[in-house]
Amino acid sequence: MKAAILNAYNEPLEIADIQIDKPGPREVLVKTAASGVCHSDLHIIEGKIPIAPPLVAGHEPAGIVEQVGRDVSYVKPGDRVIACLSIFCGLCEYCTTGRTNLCGGADQDRQPGEPPRLSRDGVPILQAAQLASYAEQMLVPENALVKVREEIPLDRAALIGCGVTTGVGAALNTARVKPGSTCVVIGCGGVGLSAIQGCRIAGAGRIIAVDTEEWKLELARKVGATDGVNGSDGSAVETVNEMTGGGVDYAFEAIGLKQTIRQAYDMSRKGGTTVMVGVTAVGVDVELPGFDIVVSEKKILGSLMGSNAFRVDMPRYVDFYLNGQLLLDEIISARRPLEDINVCFDEMKKGAAARSVIVFD
Amino acid sequence: MKAAILNAYNEPLEIADIQIDKPGPREVLVKTAASGVCHSDLHIIEGKIPIAPPLVAGHEPAGIVEQVGRDVSYVKPGDRVIACLSIFCGLCEYCTTGRTNLCGGADQDRQPGEPPRLSRDGVPILQAAQLASYAEQMLVPENALVKVREEIPLDRAALIGCGVTTGVGAALNTARVKPGSTCVVIGCGGVGLSAIQGCRIAGAGRIIAVDTEEWKLELARKVGATDGVNGSDGSAVETVNEMTGGGVDYAFEAIGLKQTIRQAYDMSRKGGTTVMVGVTAVGVDVELPGFDIVVSEKKILGSLMGSNAFRVDMPRYVDFYLNGQLLLDEIISARRPLEDINVCFDEMKKGAAARSVIVFD
Repeated sequence: MKAAILNAYNEPLEIADIQIDKPGPREVLVKTAASGVCHSDLHIIEGKIPIAPPLVAGHEPAGIVEQVGRDVSYVKPGDRVIACLSIFCGLCEYCTTGRTNLCGGADQDRQPGEPPRLSRDGVPILQAAQLASYAEQMLVPENALVKVREEIPLDRAALIGCGVTTGVGAALNTARVKPGSTCVVIGCGGVGLSAIQGCRIAGAGRIIAVDTEEWKLELARKVGATDGVNGSDGSAVETVNEMTGGGVDYAFEAIGLKQTIRQAYDMSRKGGTTVMVGVTAVGVDVELPGFDIVVSEKKILGSLMGSNAFRVDMPRYVDFYLNGQLLLDEIISARRPLEDINVCFDEMKKGAAARSVIVFD
Repeated sequence: MKAAILNAYNEPLEIADIQIDKPGPREVLVKTAASGVCHSDLHIIEGKIPIAPPLVAGHEPAGIVEQVGRDVSYVKPGDRVIACLSIFCGLCEYCTTGRTNLCGGADQDRQPGEPPRLSRDGVPILQAAQLASYAEQMLVPENALVKVREEIPLDRAALIGCGVTTGVGAALNTARVKPGSTCVVIGCGGVGLSAIQGCRIAGAGRIIAVDTEEWKLELARKVGATDGVNGSDGSAVETVNEMTGGGVDYAFEAIGLKQTIRQAYDMSRKGGTTVMVGVTAVGVDVELPGFDIVVSEKKILGSLMGSNAFRVDMPRYVDFYLNGQLLLDEIISARRPLEDINVCFDEMKKGAAARSVIVFD
């Protein structure tokens, strides 16, 4: 099958034929229908999240079940599924206390002696996050999958697999945004636009979008922002604090940069909450003012994949889409074949896309 | 009346006679019985919390009401009271949503034209935190006071005015420690020893005390720590993570140093909470690993004065003391007259005291 391979950091992905194994007892072979292109993959390509190549990245997919392992009971061939990297065991301290997104399921790879899931002429290829959705097929654990309704097209369902769940869940699950509260979202890519929608769905009174691209601010308003602030001139913190009389209740950072995390913090009011959604490069320290954290009693919350219990959350987000509460068509900037995947990353680097989706035949 | 005056940063306090005004309509004159000596005052003396001298510090007092202003209804002369710097208005967005500790009440000083509360030969002297308890009398807003039961001696009640409430409240109010959970407390001074007791009262399963002084670790065990770790050799993080299989549910930092805040963070497990209780010097940035905050979905919570609603919390803490749940006698290292206040700060700098209390006749 065809896949996009990272052979070395900072090189363009290579499209090539590779081999995929057969399902083990609790594994599922999925025909990939679509995969969103997420910024964390750019971190992997650039070595900022260091995972050793050769590898296949991609972790925001939807598809159709082709084949299931002996002990799989949750899905059958023909089922329409979203795959999520929050693979859960259902048994650990995190799963049994309702925090399945913190289960280490995705870290467990195959046992010694088992054939690799992916290989090329006998050389193992790493399957990033146990998904590797920049490929025509995926061989994934059963507990990486959630079934979805027939009615949602799979290119839109794919986005729910990571970015949309990360953003919407940051508002609904991590922050538990209160109706009537004030929110700011820094960064209006796929995750930020989803956080804005999460705030809207939660009934926030004011949702301020911050970005340096005017077209993204327009898009932000289209999906639910009540205000847009262009941060190009460096005055966004001051502007937001003036607009809100001293800062917002919830400040979401959806980029993953040290500077914008500090800006989000500085936009949060006394007693307010900063939600760190954007994934920073490994090794980057966030610098926050110690005295102010204590005397202003602020909260800083990390949010991993929108604190999801994805088998519960994702069908709800599908419902939100189908009933018009969650806008997905609007945040897709481009649909491209796998062959054009490097174009997607080039555009991402330039800030020229909200969310690109790779679509397969 | 006699007071301890800071004339310039880093100078010993001067004991001298100064003038105190009469109560305004909603003010109360309190005869100071005792005042704990808190580390934040050392920050003020050293200019790390910059408040311009001349001033009188001290904010952990108990005393007896001497005289009340025209409109005061809450207390009458002879009442035994604790004074707290979390002065609340009862009307603002914070007070009306149950976060009275975030009310800006303590920031409002007298109006222009009004005489200063404290002065020396006509020169105004700043009353730090609107309390200034290193003095024989205090002139404070009515809403800085809470009445306490007869049975508690005022030198022990004084501690509840700041350090004890800060530590106990950090566990009970800010973190809401769950029964059976694992906790670590870094720094076993008055605040840390109180945080340990808050964890114990909340039913924590394991409470690990960390300090560099063996006698403080012994004291920590006496008040409720299940384990003590001496951090002198720099291996405290590793030790605590080994003891707990990957870190604690709640890590409390009760010193206010950048390094120990990072240690507390590194001792918190995946999904865990770091509670910043110790007040850092102004201008000190805390450095925390951005990638880990997100992917380990950690929480960092500032805790100001134990997230108190002090008129409700402090009488409860007094009850805890009187029924034996909260140990206060044990954490008082020394009782000294006002004249010896500089000895208290010298000992604090050397780490030679848990909590010192200034007692008045």
